[in-house]
Amino acid sequence: MKPKTTMKSIAEELGVSVSTVSKALKDNPRISKETRKKIQAFSKLLNYQPDARAINLRKNVSKVIGVVIPEITNHFFTTVIKGIDYMTKKRGYQVMICLSNESYIEEVKNIKLLTSGSVDGLLISISSGTQKKGHYDHLFNIKNNHLPMVLFDRTEDFIGCDMVKADDIGGAYNATKTLIKSGCKRIALINFKPYINIGKERKMGYCMALDEYGIKENRSLIFEVDEEKDLFKQIEKIFNLNPLPDAIFAVKEDFAAIAIKLALKKGLKIPEDISLISFVNGLISEYSSPSITAVIQHGYNMGKMAAELLIDRIENKTTKKPYETKVIATRLKHRDSTKK
Amino acid sequence: MKPKTTMKSIAEELGVSVSTVSKALKDNPRISKETRKKIQAFSKLLNYQPDARAINLRKNVSKVIGVVIPEITNHFFTTVIKGIDYMTKKRGYQVMICLSNESYIEEVKNIKLLTSGSVDGLLISISSGTQKKGHYDHLFNIKNNHLPMVLFDRTEDFIGCDMVKADDIGGAYNATKTLIKSGCKRIALINFKPYINIGKERKMGYCMALDEYGIKENRSLIFEVDEEKDLFKQIEKIFNLNPLPDAIFAVKEDFAAIAIKLALKKGLKIPEDISLISFVNGLISEYSSPSITAVIQHGYNMGKMAAELLIDRIENKTTKKPYETKVIATRLKHRDSTKK
Repeated sequence: MKPKTTMKSIAEELGVSVSTVSKALKDNPRISKETRKKIQAFSKLLNYQPDARAINLRKNVSKVIGVVIPEITNHFFTTVIKGIDYMTKKRGYQVMICLSNESYIEEVKNIKLLTSGSVDGLLISISSGTQKKGHYDHLFNIKNNHLPMVLFDRTEDFIGCDMVKADDIGGAYNATKTLIKSGCKRIALINFKPYINIGKERKMGYCMALDEYGIKENRSLIFEVDEEKDLFKQIEKIFNLNPLPDAIFAVKEDFAAIAIKLALKKGLKIPEDISLISFVNGLISEYSSPSITAVIQHGYNMGKMAAELLIDRIENKTTKKPYETKVIATRLKHRDSTKK
Repeated sequence: MKPKTTMKSIAEELGVSVSTVSKALKDNPRISKETRKKIQAFSKLLNYQPDARAINLRKNVSKVIGVVIPEITNHFFTTVIKGIDYMTKKRGYQVMICLSNESYIEEVKNIKLLTSGSVDGLLISISSGTQKKGHYDHLFNIKNNHLPMVLFDRTEDFIGCDMVKADDIGGAYNATKTLIKSGCKRIALINFKPYINIGKERKMGYCMALDEYGIKENRSLIFEVDEEKDLFKQIEKIFNLNPLPDAIFAVKEDFAAIAIKLALKKGLKIPEDISLISFVNGLISEYSSPSITAVIQHGYNMGKMAAELLIDRIENKTTKKPYETKVIATRLKHRDSTKK
């Protein structure tokens, strides 16, 4: 690789000082016209481009926003990134995306890398590893260092910062209510392990709907699955119940798609024998056969709103504005896994 | 937002020069012990952290790699990113990901942003918009500026740089051969529009397999779809053929999943009446019912190899090493859409 052309290399090549090169490139009349022309022509010849890092360093801004997401192969997070990308470009920022891969250690490393001076602010969705451990010092440190930060989707209230999240309670409530109104009474819930915050809230919405229609919460219908273990084996237990449930509400679309595969294998008809609704409206819900009725979380809007909140915080150089939590209303997308 | 602590702000606060602060923080004995201790204690109190950008700027490296991908909500590209992320972290680099959203203009803008001094090299997968337009000046410019670059997946030979790609010809050849060997003779091909390079190669593999088994290429069985238009309408035409094809080979998994939905709607049995194989082994192939036999491209390995090639090129500061093209062999994942 040939070294990059810098003011220093131009100065060395022409036997002048760096300061002369700098002034000549700004067409400063304190440098003789002849020297200016020579330096300008030579810089053009060598394809010299001013270094954006140097300019930003002088201004003490990087115009870069760091994003930490738990899982890149999760369709929902990719739609959030699309929204973040749209808004950051619109406001003149670049995005640096890091992946925690649901690991606490990786999340800490990502944040260390990003905060070593190269970002103006952070957008973070907390990994399940961090929620399982319950260690949040790395997030409090960001606050202590006065670096603007917005949490999205996987949030924790006690950190004390701006947040954007889907209405997990309302989305689950509406999904469950839709199943009840279509005639279902024994509604199984496939949930995350209890340390995942969004799972707690989705269960809350499920229970609220049952309660409203006088259906008693039945603990044998609630399945908490561990994503690190075989999902098929864990979800198959639903079909050992006697009597079988007449509906399933899953908090994640791959849980629902696996339930569909297992139900079809058992010879059950969907939605006649068993109805399904899933949280997360991604590729799996759309392309599964039958397609899955799903809760739309508006990931693209979530990304746009989170980026906007962060950039407003970065550009408004006071700490006086109180922290905001934006809750995005969900919507149900009706497909073939529920009765019309 | 409270301003960040810098050497300048420490110097101002303590009434000393920036140079004194710098020396004191390096424990330089030319500064009196008392002053050193005072400056070090004060810096600690204010949570001063040296700016990685300043250090890297002095070395004329950023330790950041720019990645330009056409589409973030495409599962294949997310697996490539996972591989890139793994390798860059291992080699001590950060990743800055930009999205071209399949647009030539966005791709040009991404590259302009990334090359304004803030990356040591680029990993690029060319957008369909660029391939459609056939404009490649922005890629030649990267070469002219001596910035290391590796193209992955969507590549163009004539650019002249390191490349990593899947064996698109071999993968399509094996898929088609598998269909023929299971007894299929009328194999429809759902392909991209012809300006997409990987589509040309996949068609070549399809034709090679037909030719090997003495099956004449039948142009009425080849469907080139435009992803910007309604895919259901375009793919539905396959089922108007008389006689119907006995197999479909799709170059992308959502094409295959749509074909499955349409086939089931027509009352066809899969794989008894019609078999399907798809390129791309992602979430859709896995969760579709029936699940889809698919060509695995090893996206994770592609990402790792592309990042490794790039970092080797960055750290080996000569242009002498000839450009390499690494072709990754594919593998067929057998599922329920083909006969055993």
